Amino acid sequence: MGSTFGHLFRITTFGESHGGGVGVIIDGCPPGLEISAEEIQFELDRRRPGQSKITTPRKEADTCEILSGVFEGKTLGTPIAIFVKNKDTRAQDYDEMAQKYRPSHADATYDAKYGFRNWQGGGRSSARETIGRVAAGAIAKKVLHQVADVVVIAYVKRIKDLEGVVDTNTVTLEDVESNIVRCPDGEIANQMIELIEKTGRDGNSIGGVVECVVRNVPKGLGEPVFDKLEADLGKAVMSLPASKGFEIGSGFDGTLLTGFEHNDEFYIDENGEIRTVTNRSGGIQGGISNGENIILRVAFKPTATIRKQQKTVTKEGEETVLAGKGRHDPCVLPRAVPMVDAMVALVLCDHLLRHYGQCKVL
Amino acid sequence: MGSTFGHLFRITTFGESHGGGVGVIIDGCPPGLEISAEEIQFELDRRRPGQSKITTPRKEADTCEILSGVFEGKTLGTPIAIFVKNKDTRAQDYDEMAQKYRPSHADATYDAKYGFRNWQGGGRSSARETIGRVAAGAIAKKVLHQVADVVVIAYVKRIKDLEGVVDTNTVTLEDVESNIVRCPDGEIANQMIELIEKTGRDGNSIGGVVECVVRNVPKGLGEPVFDKLEADLGKAVMSLPASKGFEIGSGFDGTLLTGFEHNDEFYIDENGEIRTVTNRSGGIQGGISNGENIILRVAFKPTATIRKQQKTVTKEGEETVLAGKGRHDPCVLPRAVPMVDAMVALVLCDHLLRHYGQCKVL
Amino acid sequence: MGSTFGHLFRITTFGESHGGGVGVIIDGCPPGLEISAEEIQFELDRRRPGQSKITTPRKEADTCEILSGVFEGKTLGTPIAIFVKNKDTRAQDYDEMAQKYRPSHADATYDAKYGFRNWQGGGRSSARETIGRVAAGAIAKKVLHQVADVVVIAYVKRIKDLEGVVDTNTVTLEDVESNIVRCPDGEIANQMIELIEKTGRDGNSIGGVVECVVRNVPKGLGEPVFDKLEADLGKAVMSLPASKGFEIGSGFDGTLLTGFEHNDEFYIDENGEIRTVTNRSGGIQGGISNGENIILRVAFKPTATIRKQQKTVTKEGEETVLAGKGRHDPCVLPRAVPMVDAMVALVLCDHLLRHYGQCKVL
Amino acid sequence: MGSTFGHLFRITTFGESHGGGVGVIIDGCPPGLEISAEEIQFELDRRRPGQSKITTPRKEADTCEILSGVFEGKTLGTPIAIFVKNKDTRAQDYDEMAQKYRPSHADATYDAKYGFRNWQGGGRSSARETIGRVAAGAIAKKVLHQVADVVVIAYVKRIKDLEGVVDTNTVTLEDVESNIVRCPDGEIANQMIELIEKTGRDGNSIGGVVECVVRNVPKGLGEPVFDKLEADLGKAVMSLPASKGFEIGSGFDGTLLTGFEHNDEFYIDENGEIRTVTNRSGGIQGGISNGENIILRVAFKPTATIRKQQKTVTKEGEETVLAGKGRHDPCVLPRAVPMVDAMVALVLCDHLLRHYGQCKVL
Repeated sequence: MGSTFGHLFRITTFGESHGGGVGVIIDGCPPGLEISAEEIQFELDRRRPGQSKITTPRKEADTCEILSGVFEGKTLGTPIAIFVKNKDTRAQDYDEMAQKYRPSHADATYDAKYGFRNWQGGGRSSARETIGRVAAGAIAKKVLHQVADVVVIAYVKRIKDLEGVVDTNTVTLEDVESNIVRCPDGEIANQMIELIEKTGRDGNSIGGVVECVVRNVPKGLGEPVFDKLEADLGKAVMSLPASKGFEIGSGFDGTLLTGFEHNDEFYIDENGEIRTVTNRSGGIQGGISNGENIILRVAFKPTATIRKQQKTVTKEGEETVLAGKGRHDPCVLPRAVPMVDAMVALVLCDHLLRHYGQCKVL
Repeated sequence: MGSTFGHLFRITTFGESHGGGVGVIIDGCPPGLEISAEEIQFELDRRRPGQSKITTPRKEADTCEILSGVFEGKTLGTPIAIFVKNKDTRAQDYDEMAQKYRPSHADATYDAKYGFRNWQGGGRSSARETIGRVAAGAIAKKVLHQVADVVVIAYVKRIKDLEGVVDTNTVTLEDVESNIVRCPDGEIANQMIELIEKTGRDGNSIGGVVECVVRNVPKGLGEPVFDKLEADLGKAVMSLPASKGFEIGSGFDGTLLTGFEHNDEFYIDENGEIRTVTNRSGGIQGGISNGENIILRVAFKPTATIRKQQKTVTKEGEETVLAGKGRHDPCVLPRAVPMVDAMVALVLCDHLLRHYGQCKVL
Repeated sequence: MGSTFGHLFRITTFGESHGGGVGVIIDGCPPGLEISAEEIQFELDRRRPGQSKITTPRKEADTCEILSGVFEGKTLGTPIAIFVKNKDTRAQDYDEMAQKYRPSHADATYDAKYGFRNWQGGGRSSARETIGRVAAGAIAKKVLHQVADVVVIAYVKRIKDLEGVVDTNTVTLEDVESNIVRCPDGEIANQMIELIEKTGRDGNSIGGVVECVVRNVPKGLGEPVFDKLEADLGKAVMSLPASKGFEIGSGFDGTLLTGFEHNDEFYIDENGEIRTVTNRSGGIQGGISNGENIILRVAFKPTATIRKQQKTVTKEGEETVLAGKGRHDPCVLPRAVPMVDAMVALVLCDHLLRHYGQCKVL
Repeated sequence: MGSTFGHLFRITTFGESHGGGVGVIIDGCPPGLEISAEEIQFELDRRRPGQSKITTPRKEADTCEILSGVFEGKTLGTPIAIFVKNKDTRAQDYDEMAQKYRPSHADATYDAKYGFRNWQGGGRSSARETIGRVAAGAIAKKVLHQVADVVVIAYVKRIKDLEGVVDTNTVTLEDVESNIVRCPDGEIANQMIELIEKTGRDGNSIGGVVECVVRNVPKGLGEPVFDKLEADLGKAVMSLPASKGFEIGSGFDGTLLTGFEHNDEFYIDENGEIRTVTNRSGGIQGGISNGENIILRVAFKPTATIRKQQKTVTKEGEETVLAGKGRHDPCVLPRAVPMVDAMVALVLCDHLLRHYGQCKVL
């Protein structure tokens, strides 16, 4: 069941980094949504390796094809299949990988679980799998926008110890896309880019934090108890490769405040709506959206693949060393932004349909 | 679907803080497990309000009754129903609550979602709902222990800025239970208790971090992609009341390291097993357990209910003020420990059964 | 997962025939539905053994108690727990059952699966488990009625070879309840009653067919492909004890017609609605309701428990004989009527909520 | 959620009869199974239109491609994606279909549900969707065979009123494939072929019954209560296009027997195994397999598409007439055989993995 996510808006991804290709089935998308391969491609291009000088240099076109579910430019309500062919790749690049487990990769655990794996480039554990998620997220974002004007915007908040200042009320997709590191704080962004380039030259890697804000969320989304909105969001982003932490609203820092300091007092706004003065809850109370901005953060560890030599073992149980070859991706954060966007949109879209019904929302 | 959790080991909780009672159905527990109401009661007593001078003084017996699924002291493989009756409570304590939304509680969002709620003491959003989880967790812990010697131990790691030092390799349940704050670092524990008492006297509240270690985890648990072990663990603990953040292994701090510093190098141990030198991965790589200790942390915000006066609004949309009456729970952390224990055990037990099969494990 | 049914309107049953009791959790019921224990009891009384001279004489009060989810007479939107206590029963009645497998009962398969069972009166495989379903069905029927005026009416169509004539367009609950065999065709009903009484005196049992009609079904319920409405209905009723067959619309007899004879031609009715002249489709086309009456039939085998002696084996693998003691239930059909009602209502209610949304329907 | 089936062995189909193509994702297949596109193609060819003179003459190559999940000839344990491209088809064949609802097709209900459909050749409701099921079924059958020697064999039992005699203990795939109508009773098969040809010449269609036997089923598969094996099998086959009824073991005819006649007496066989003398239960008791052959039957109505003129209405609500053009499929039964095979295998494989665990079975 590991490859399916969501209930009413449900996606299933497939594919390994090597082999025929990767893709996604989206089941439960409401009928009548105008969608084109170009709109999906826009998000895929944000995820694509080789898109800028600070990401992995592998050039992958990652051109998507809609195989089903769309007719005369509109969704049918039936499953939308999206497929991205893999390029023919030289398997010999990976010869060593068949034998040596890469530290902090999934090679060893896949072998432990399945007794067997596609050792070429990470197989199913490759970040290439997220192509399907990002494609599905593009559609979820459009549903959210058309049904309820909901806007999902993720961006790089911090790289290592360089943290940007971002106004969650006003930040736009254009701000995010205004630089290649996807941090809307331009000054810090430049420092981040410099740090990533230097790290890459050293054959090393760095991590950081992606923040995501969702605006115009209808009140009442999310379920009490286990399917709380923050629980589903937590699962969604913790399923992304390299994520090590999740927080909502005040998060870990909120534990340093007292209740009196932390509580979000209520007031009535100029439209007679019940609002909160502060938003330490991050837009969710008791698992249910309260209409304030949803704000969450995801910690991504430094990429495991580096060019520095490290100790490891072979499949047969002998100790050895390994160093990544060729160029590598010194920082996954800029490419993680559309992934976070996608996962957050998928969760909200699923809860939206539970609340408003499956077919009648558009 | 919000009240059901898990797939092969699946629980469904029910009940509000006021009304007949609360409980849980556990479906999929392997047959033949010896279990008694006393073993479950042990965990419930750890969760119980009024258990010590630093928790909420409400005295609730919370005596559990096994209604089905156990025969001659052993599980049948059929659903285990556990029920805890509510005490008759004086509804008048809560009169104000029917009208005024408590800041950072779920009152307002429940009304937004359902148009209606049981306003007595939090209703379904009350922490009383977790009785069912803790009862189910007691059984999951026993299954884990009997099948694979797996041990789950949660404890208080930090209260506000007071952080304990705990050795994850050796900490025991006895260490956790050696003081009322459930922090195995005795010296810090005393300071924590003092801080909680002072905070309670002030009518205020504080939060902190619960850490959980799982030892002897079989390799190979967890699914690639969406049902990664850390994703399911994240969802599990983020569904607990008052949780605001989750991290696994190196977590948010890990983002400050480089890949070279962060990667867990492999070696072969004295038994010929593949092991990692460090454990920044927190026992999970690529979503699958690698046999090292699983280590995770959960941030709990300061309890929302305080005795200090705060601004709020009424159901009818008028601004007003509210202050909690009587005594309150100044810090939920000691009681959150068995809840984290339970949720972690439920996730692992579910993945264990997927891996080893449903009926043949005992 | 075997004890949970449904997605948005989801029930979980628990309990064995002996032990604390049996019950159900209903999760996902829309908030604001007025419901009382009396309304649920009405359906439970239709299911109750000993309700008339032609059913099993065991007198069970089966009084239900609502433990949660209802506040001031209305559903909260949170899980509704309903519990029915078991009577203290004399275990010695069943002494032989601990050793000998009753032919065509679940004793042997439970032992094969679980290695262990509650041998008292059938345990979890007892028809007593259906109490939870019937209680939940009572609520589902009320939701269907209030949201869309949907009416679900099951009745006995055939007992052995005695078949009643029933007009599916006009039959009412009163017609069904007008006699103890629950066949609206009064003349045949008398013959059925006579046959059942004679069979009971012989220590034997008989089966038959329950038919169910659903009127006023909104168009558009059901999903293409796997969750077709007829597939979900088929699963629902095939999960009832003693059911051996299911058919929708023309069913097995429809296979004797040609396509020209079988197809339902369309016309426009006086309200401009698209309708079908005939209804061999049984109200569902391509898995989706078309607004015509849903008509289905369920085959129930003769009850396995009889007083005649039959060959069997012991748990230890020795051949022996067994004859039921005391009085038995010669025909389950009259009591199966509310069970079919319930399962059909549960399926429709689930699909209704998927279509219209979870919280806003009432 | 309508396009996903199964829990541990889970499939998701996609695609319309016109558009890019159709296919399936199989998630949860155990790792290490040798599988080739040729083995899958064998089953697809049995399903293919135009395979013989008695099926629809549309010539579709239906060549399958494995896009992921198989590496060096073996399953990886990760999702297996199988894709079959659609041929370019002349949309003009279907011009009338955009306007006129075909009687007893899903055209009208799709429009009622989605407000919109791909009117070309049935879109998602086309039997072409079953390609994905049959491909997945080929893999499920191989898993069943390798893990436990389980054999699934479906065949045509009856066409209209022509019923074959088949020995469920000995019938083989070769027997089924020995004639184009797939009825192992050769004499009756010839009469069936003649009847189908005559019916086709008349522009009419006929239906019938497919029977399926499963041999060597391990004891203990299936869950009590809702996920009874017969309930899951019922849902599985009732989700096939044109199915109108399902029965297990004695089925509807069993309702004409008394309990004394119907009960399956137990005995101990020469290997000391507990067996039943008769098999009116159809291999399942209390929802759980008892080791006897599973025997079930599915009723398929006569195909809706015929060349005779019938009354219908247009999308805009005007009454009109419609007659199918070109040649049509006078009897779906021979092609339904591999579909039933597939659905039955999928259910058993899912329950097998629940029982024995997901990864360790091969």
